[in-house]
Amino acid sequence: MRLLFIGDVVGRAGRIAVVDQLPKLRLAWGLDFVVVNGENAAGGFGVTESICDQFLSAGADCVTLGNHSFDQREALVFIARQPRLIRPVNYPRGTPGKGANLFETATGARVLVVNILGRVFMDPLDDPFAAIERELEACPLGVGCDAAIVDFHGEASSEKQAFGHFVDGRVSLVVGTHTHVPTADYQILRQRTAYMTDAGMTGDYDSVIGMDKEEPLRRFTTKIPASRFEPASGPATLCGVAVELDARGLAAKIAPVRIGGRLTEARPDFW
Amino acid sequence: MRLLFIGDVVGRAGRIAVVDQLPKLRLAWGLDFVVVNGENAAGGFGVTESICDQFLSAGADCVTLGNHSFDQREALVFIARQPRLIRPVNYPRGTPGKGANLFETATGARVLVVNILGRVFMDPLDDPFAAIERELEACPLGVGCDAAIVDFHGEASSEKQAFGHFVDGRVSLVVGTHTHVPTADYQILRQRTAYMTDAGMTGDYDSVIGMDKEEPLRRFTTKIPASRFEPASGPATLCGVAVELDARGLAAKIAPVRIGGRLTEARPDFW
Amino acid sequence: MRLLFIGDVVGRAGRIAVVDQLPKLRLAWGLDFVVVNGENAAGGFGVTESICDQFLSAGADCVTLGNHSFDQREALVFIARQPRLIRPVNYPRGTPGKGANLFETATGARVLVVNILGRVFMDPLDDPFAAIERELEACPLGVGCDAAIVDFHGEASSEKQAFGHFVDGRVSLVVGTHTHVPTADYQILRQRTAYMTDAGMTGDYDSVIGMDKEEPLRRFTTKIPASRFEPASGPATLCGVAVELDARGLAAKIAPVRIGGRLTEARPDFW
Amino acid sequence: MRLLFIGDVVGRAGRIAVVDQLPKLRLAWGLDFVVVNGENAAGGFGVTESICDQFLSAGADCVTLGNHSFDQREALVFIARQPRLIRPVNYPRGTPGKGANLFETATGARVLVVNILGRVFMDPLDDPFAAIERELEACPLGVGCDAAIVDFHGEASSEKQAFGHFVDGRVSLVVGTHTHVPTADYQILRQRTAYMTDAGMTGDYDSVIGMDKEEPLRRFTTKIPASRFEPASGPATLCGVAVELDARGLAAKIAPVRIGGRLTEARPDFW
Ligand SMILES: [Fe+2]
Ligand SMILES: [Fe+2]
Ligand SMILES: [Fe+2]
Ligand SMILES: [Fe+2]
Ligand SMILES: [Fe+2]
Ligand SMILES: [Fe+2]
Ligand SMILES: [Fe+2]
Ligand SMILES: [Fe+2]
Repeated sequence: MRLLFIGDVVGRAGRIAVVDQLPKLRLAWGLDFVVVNGENAAGGFGVTESICDQFLSAGADCVTLGNHSFDQREALVFIARQPRLIRPVNYPRGTPGKGANLFETATGARVLVVNILGRVFMDPLDDPFAAIERELEACPLGVGCDAAIVDFHGEASSEKQAFGHFVDGRVSLVVGTHTHVPTADYQILRQRTAYMTDAGMTGDYDSVIGMDKEEPLRRFTTKIPASRFEPASGPATLCGVAVELDARGLAAKIAPVRIGGRLTEARPDFW
Repeated sequence: MRLLFIGDVVGRAGRIAVVDQLPKLRLAWGLDFVVVNGENAAGGFGVTESICDQFLSAGADCVTLGNHSFDQREALVFIARQPRLIRPVNYPRGTPGKGANLFETATGARVLVVNILGRVFMDPLDDPFAAIERELEACPLGVGCDAAIVDFHGEASSEKQAFGHFVDGRVSLVVGTHTHVPTADYQILRQRTAYMTDAGMTGDYDSVIGMDKEEPLRRFTTKIPASRFEPASGPATLCGVAVELDARGLAAKIAPVRIGGRLTEARPDFW
Repeated sequence: MRLLFIGDVVGRAGRIAVVDQLPKLRLAWGLDFVVVNGENAAGGFGVTESICDQFLSAGADCVTLGNHSFDQREALVFIARQPRLIRPVNYPRGTPGKGANLFETATGARVLVVNILGRVFMDPLDDPFAAIERELEACPLGVGCDAAIVDFHGEASSEKQAFGHFVDGRVSLVVGTHTHVPTADYQILRQRTAYMTDAGMTGDYDSVIGMDKEEPLRRFTTKIPASRFEPASGPATLCGVAVELDARGLAAKIAPVRIGGRLTEARPDFW
Repeated sequence: MRLLFIGDVVGRAGRIAVVDQLPKLRLAWGLDFVVVNGENAAGGFGVTESICDQFLSAGADCVTLGNHSFDQREALVFIARQPRLIRPVNYPRGTPGKGANLFETATGARVLVVNILGRVFMDPLDDPFAAIERELEACPLGVGCDAAIVDFHGEASSEKQAFGHFVDGRVSLVVGTHTHVPTADYQILRQRTAYMTDAGMTGDYDSVIGMDKEEPLRRFTTKIPASRFEPASGPATLCGVAVELDARGLAAKIAPVRIGGRLTEARPDFW
């Protein structure tokens, strides 16, 4: 099975990259399943229904979120009728939407996607380690699903790596999001879980994590906000990770993906 | 001028990688100046005089530190007699050692190295932006020095990127350290400063940021420490960034470096 | 029913205050139930079995803990055989000991004690609001118990106050601990829950939160640790809160308690 | 000399308490100098010029601020023409306004007021310990001024207490602000500096730190904001601290002040 995960899409520049590239990649690479993190898609903050639909039309099977899940308040409503949009599983009980869902590919394979928020240097939610334990008990890889993808949305590399090892051999892919910087530590862990600390953002890399530089710089140097953060509008780099799974749903191959914009291009050479 | 920066060396595994590889790289690539971040070199915590000497003998011109600068208390003493070891410049006045120093290469070029601690999600020190302003006023690129390297030791990608833009065109290289994960966002900024959010650690990547997995995993899942953190002992990946400067001391080329261990190899193709 | 809660006992000075004062207070005030927070009783870090026994002998019915619960590793063991020692209820599943327990007073009244850790500016544990909800469902005031005391161990005043309002009318007393400073905002909330943001520590107030001043001052000014923290050894102030409950287990009267040491004395005038 | 410090005035309820009480207190207690922390005076966030004028008319000699200094952007402008409004001294160089100022009382005594932001659990600014050192060097108590008041706006009790000891004997009064809860640890330190960890807010104590309970409770339990924070509108308690200085400008007497609203009344018995 061929998976593509695309990291935090930031604003209009990021959306254009997804809409332009994803249909072609889906076809060219023969992708079976595509996940897009959309927590910054709407002006940098949250996601709207029409943007979510755009991603699904462009070839995404599932859209994940993060700490900005509900910055667009309409997401609190439409998430209930959009099973392909999932929000972090460790939000409090009663939060609209689901934190994990099972999808079927065109060829009938069942793919579990779980979105989880880290807690180190983040707003404290419930234990991400206990949360994944519950999800995997309910739907074990090889039993309840044929592939399992975790979007671990977190700040600290230590927490993300510990989490990767915690589920090693029990999920197909753990990919981090939230720092908006792609990491080069992609690897297949010992028990054959594909791992990458951060997928990077899909946005303009001549920026401060996707945002126009001016206001962040002003805040760092003066400590006084002067205006809202606005997404940077230069050409985006589509960033993510490509994974080929074996028959058991574990990782056979992993490669970073970086297309367009300012970063050095990277594509899987195995497809 | 040819620069190599090597990220946080973690424990014995990391030290072996440096000692094995650096002499060969220095020669093969014709390096003019090499900086090694040594804040985790001694058992994961700080640096001793003999380890610092080892790095210098292996081909480092300068050793930088970070939030673990003085975990080995002998560093408080020997840093005074070792001008090639520098600690973050934004420590309080009166801290032993220097936070910036000017070195001469074999061919007589003057290289300024500044080590700075970020403040987001870190112990609060004085303003890193004001600190670099002072250093660059005292020693401007092209006037007081022929190259200027900043090791920005920080957690948050936003702060590192904002810092990069802040000094764009005024220093040769801003390279982040501390997250222990190499990033793939290396680029030459608009005013020709080489930039990379994190150099990555030089250590065993089958670990939690270089440390044996067991104790970090236990702490994340039980919230109760059971033993000390120990560096992981598998083969290390030497991680860093290679930069070629033009005559003005600004960046002409940049490439990531990853050699050995579990990560995909990367070397500059321009040397 | 007459309750006394005594805040974080710090080191030997704090223990002496408890052992000296508590037997007399118990008698003089005709106390029905006494809780002592013991998380800093052993040299400032954690609690040992013999210290816990000391508090129980001196007149405590229950000893609570906090973020330092298991700094003395023996507590991981003896907490299993000491039902009167409780640790925060929102630790991960599988943590030794209990986070809530039901006790009987001499006159047969049932008192529920719950110890909870806040999450703001603290190590992230599971949701304290969800945790108390579960405990109160299992043992509602007036049904499962005749009095309910919550020791909310937290840093942020906002979280403590929000928690107080959240359980207002459903518990007898919410008292904060952890900041080691007694607050003067004790009051009976609208639905008759007694509330005080922090009980204060029982320790030497010529100190930095109970610790000898020298090392904390050195760390704040130099950012470099030089030695361990040691409890200050001057005379301690016993700090806490006294509450008189009505027949329904809700608060009729509340008063701060400060006895000995440097702080202005305060005692309930209603007993 | 007789000093009164009034803690963070929150919203309209807080302002009414100041305007109603302060003129009477000034007269009744024969106050020589009054400081009001106004960082939350305008709807909970910052201060406007007309509110600042209101405080000065009501009897304040100086208005201090905190982390909310410039939430009302007009403060960035009018602070330049209002020497009686001061903002934290450890903001970056170039911040409008002053962080310390010298005032003269009716009888000709010179009073230094310094406003400082703590860094623990706060946005990181420059070192508060180094900052006070510079101010006291420029204007030592007994030489450059006859009284020195520090409003230390911070979260952590440890940092506030360490700061108090750091300047003990060198200033008249260190009073903390920001937690919005009055503490009962007021005391005269060994070298005769008056100290209180927090003055408490001047606002409605049937609230979450002065704000209407509903939204904070919603955020704590759901982690999703639903509306803006609004100040609670019930009767406020005026909270602060009263200090009598000796001829050298050191503390002779200290007492908490709590007038009106839900908290137990407290007034100095020595005036
Ligand atoms: Fe994001
Ligand atoms: Fe995020
Ligand atoms: Fe490091
Ligand atoms: Fe570090
Ligand atoms: Fe404590
Ligand atoms: Fe504590
Ligand atoms: Fe405030
Ligand atoms: Fe504040």
